[in-house]
Amino acid sequence: MQKLAGVLQNFFNQAHAKGRLRRECFGNLIYYRLIDDSQPFRRGTVIFEEGTLIPGYPQIGRMIRLDKGLKEQFTKPFWAEEKVDGYNVRIFLLGERLLGVTRGGFLCPFTVDRLPDLIDERIFSDHPDFILCGEIAGPENPYLIGSPPFIKEDIQLFIFDCQRKGEFDYLSQAEKHQLMEHYSLPSVRNFGLFKAEDILAIKQLMMTLDTEGCEGLVFKEDVPRGKRSKYVTSDASLSDIQAMARYLPDFPPEYFIGRILRSVIFLDEEGISSTHELKAQLGSAFIDGLLKAIKQCQREHRVYHRFRCRLHDRANARQLLAHLARGDGHIQIVKHRLVREGEFYIFEFDKVFQRTTGLLGELLSGEMVYD
Amino acid sequence: MQKLAGVLQNFFNQAHAKGRLRRECFGNLIYYRLIDDSQPFRRGTVIFEEGTLIPGYPQIGRMIRLDKGLKEQFTKPFWAEEKVDGYNVRIFLLGERLLGVTRGGFLCPFTVDRLPDLIDERIFSDHPDFILCGEIAGPENPYLIGSPPFIKEDIQLFIFDCQRKGEFDYLSQAEKHQLMEHYSLPSVRNFGLFKAEDILAIKQLMMTLDTEGCEGLVFKEDVPRGKRSKYVTSDASLSDIQAMARYLPDFPPEYFIGRILRSVIFLDEEGISSTHELKAQLGSAFIDGLLKAIKQCQREHRVYHRFRCRLHDRANARQLLAHLARGDGHIQIVKHRLVREGEFYIFEFDKVFQRTTGLLGELLSGEMVYD
Repeated sequence: MQKLAGVLQNFFNQAHAKGRLRRECFGNLIYYRLIDDSQPFRRGTVIFEEGTLIPGYPQIGRMIRLDKGLKEQFTKPFWAEEKVDGYNVRIFLLGERLLGVTRGGFLCPFTVDRLPDLIDERIFSDHPDFILCGEIAGPENPYLIGSPPFIKEDIQLFIFDCQRKGEFDYLSQAEKHQLMEHYSLPSVRNFGLFKAEDILAIKQLMMTLDTEGCEGLVFKEDVPRGKRSKYVTSDASLSDIQAMARYLPDFPPEYFIGRILRSVIFLDEEGISSTHELKAQLGSAFIDGLLKAIKQCQREHRVYHRFRCRLHDRANARQLLAHLARGDGHIQIVKHRLVREGEFYIFEFDKVFQRTTGLLGELLSGEMVYD
Repeated sequence: MQKLAGVLQNFFNQAHAKGRLRRECFGNLIYYRLIDDSQPFRRGTVIFEEGTLIPGYPQIGRMIRLDKGLKEQFTKPFWAEEKVDGYNVRIFLLGERLLGVTRGGFLCPFTVDRLPDLIDERIFSDHPDFILCGEIAGPENPYLIGSPPFIKEDIQLFIFDCQRKGEFDYLSQAEKHQLMEHYSLPSVRNFGLFKAEDILAIKQLMMTLDTEGCEGLVFKEDVPRGKRSKYVTSDASLSDIQAMARYLPDFPPEYFIGRILRSVIFLDEEGISSTHELKAQLGSAFIDGLLKAIKQCQREHRVYHRFRCRLHDRANARQLLAHLARGDGHIQIVKHRLVREGEFYIFEFDKVFQRTTGLLGELLSGEMVYD
């Protein structure tokens, strides 16, 4: 990190000494990532040896009650952008290389492999100091179970912010919009500028998104360092439960409880009168998921999810596997197959949920629990 | 504790020094209770100053899968007794006084007040060294939200074990049965002697109990220190969720997750094909409970449950209030009213669930959360 200014150098040396800055390798490339917030830097901030700094993407606070929340949080007008259910990436140029880091600040072999399919690189030839922030979503992503219903295969990128290297501020909506247009970049949908009093229009929009199976909205004041807040639909909460109930013992119980709570407050606020179908949906989310896990456990003696993704470079599969294996200690990653199909390598691997496998195995074999 | 034998004296002195034995008062009566298991004594063991020792009631392991569980746990025949959803008590004579302690080893002012209504005291005149172990259940109990559907008012006692003071073993079923008959004591239902191979009959019984809204069964080998195990119905798990979802943030999330898991394994084992109604039931349990909490929070700015119980002695209301106030720090106990009605004082008080009140209050007022 010899090229950082003195103050920064000092800051990161201290963070490193405290174990908050971790040294990572990506092939021959050495970089450092901040593992938690350390003012003024966010968790996931990345620093390369030659001095480039990619700020972490800030967490956006969640409103649980829309009407009160908007009034409470926003005094100025704000844009409403679609919130897409995927994984967060920051895309940028390092020398000649187009790179992508995940929220946690890991260079992602999958993202880097697929960036040329997702983005027109000319933006970086013209603006090598730009960082594009977005979400990668779709059924063939290596991180998330479940994907937006409107993406039928592979993955898509949805850009929602742009900033300059080493800066914290994001471009204004107008600047961002111009860039997206000019380079035909894939952007999240922007539903326009609203005020807190436009609650009826926003609620109507939210109900449409709920019906379409969209995740929700992010509200952004259009001023530098403007306030930001997010709100998710009831459908998104139920979909999460549906997708994860199968691996229930591997997730913190708060994961499910929080979503139940959000979904009910959504119903209450929207005054949805006939909740019978929604009750069945919530019940199904748990019951169907767990019944599937039980069947899988009895049949195959392990509870797992099979992931599939497409890669250009065969070597990236191995790198991805090594990257994923670093995650949660109780989730085991097992390669299933790697085959050429047309222009891609199809890479399939299993995430084996070991707590779920262990617990269901014990319970189903008649062991006793003391609770 | 001057009357305990030397070894015991030594044991309890050590436990006291380690803070595991707490000194308690009940009026003028001084006693000590063991706050966790400390071999060979159980949590909830009670020792009186004059030397009487009441052993803690042992925790009974839970089977989640009935067929495999019975085969795994039982090689000898076992009795199947109804498991009643109430609070655990041990009833005994201390000198001339008939007393009752809860699972945790607290002398309970409510239980002590009501014992003369629940039990024929002649058993203790004839056998002053007996301890009766049972469950007190019913809509007018001061501890539990929810009660068995077959108890329409007030409370009832259900005895399931009898032992001698200072001994760990329980009387055999034959001895216990004889006592219950002779003194017309209220007992849990005993459904007979089974073997693990009688699984079909046991499952049929369990389905009947599920339909009746009963909690489940306790299986007991009929030999000294015989194995014991319990199994609850799906309906019991769903009822718990139904009763508690309203105060969801005040309970550990595992409370709900464990019950969902049990209930689904029950469904799977029983091969219940039409689960649609059950899905709606599970969904309702959460949604109805939380919607009620939201309404209550908006209307009264606090989320609480009103308890009502009957007492003979007005002074016991104050003692009960003080006893309850010692519980969970985040639950506030507020007296509502205490009035004479016929032969009883009707005592009403509220348990205010402060976490639920606080969290719902924040969320509904539009505050942001970072998760």
